[in-house]
Amino acid sequence: MIEVRRAKIGDGPFLMTTTTELGRSHGWADSMTATAAKLEAALFDVDPVIGACIALVEGQAAGSAIWHRSFSTRVGAEIMYLEDLVVLADFRRRGVAEALMKFVAKQAITAGYQKIFWLMMEWNSGARQFYEGIGAEIENGNCYCSLSGHALTEFAA
Amino acid sequence: MIEVRRAKIGDGPFLMTTTTELGRSHGWADSMTATAAKLEAALFDVDPVIGACIALVEGQAAGSAIWHRSFSTRVGAEIMYLEDLVVLADFRRRGVAEALMKFVAKQAITAGYQKIFWLMMEWNSGARQFYEGIGAEIENGNCYCSLSGHALTEFAA
Repeated sequence: MIEVRRAKIGDGPFLMTTTTELGRSHGWADSMTATAAKLEAALFDVDPVIGACIALVEGQAAGSAIWHRSFSTRVGAEIMYLEDLVVLADFRRRGVAEALMKFVAKQAITAGYQKIFWLMMEWNSGARQFYEGIGAEIENGNCYCSLSGHALTEFAA
Repeated sequence: MIEVRRAKIGDGPFLMTTTTELGRSHGWADSMTATAAKLEAALFDVDPVIGACIALVEGQAAGSAIWHRSFSTRVGAEIMYLEDLVVLADFRRRGVAEALMKFVAKQAITAGYQKIFWLMMEWNSGARQFYEGIGAEIENGNCYCSLSGHALTEFAA
């Protein structure tokens, strides 16, 4: 019994749990500055850029997805970016990821988006298998570039 | 003489020129559905997710950058995504990209963002050299994944 619902007030700590789980598996948990309060504040902001949903397995929180507004100059329209999709270890191989992704896809269609995009690490063969299975297109050979902290302030000065 | 200013009404056709130039160099110009009118409408929407700036060299439009609101669950806050940064061929090697990037970095800081991120293709050695030179961190091994069109509607059904 998998149920997926929109995130609500009070879900911050669980979203922090799933985000931390993602950070652990991807090697950046130690550099996280997110907190449950920050995630919840962003979700219920006056003009939120993000949305989130929670998957429940027999009433227990099992995973989450967080997306945000995005835009493609190729499409010429707003599209959806899927920031995180996480299923906690105890709940894997039961269709939770697919249920989350279906909820996200329905949200995208309701919002009028023609496309959802997200990033995946090339080494993540489990994720690749799942995403290929649902009909996603996967393009290797991308670099994630960022400018932040001291490098950002220095460059902007 | 390089000047960078925010995009204004009437800049849609030039933004379409730079986007098309990017599409050509990256092999997706033929599948673009963007139009000058769509880009301009998105910029001046009631609640725009994107922002843009234009670089002028001796008064001539030479390049552009388009960014959008984004969010990082790792940071726990809104950050900036740089969708496009394009300098037209006739204006390269004069510091236009750096002027555009500095304008974008200042916008990010003004908006309170701690981070700008963007994608780059691994084969794009010119871009890599430029971004490394301004202090960006570059992570190889990413995949761009997307679900759109028939695959999206089919999956969501």
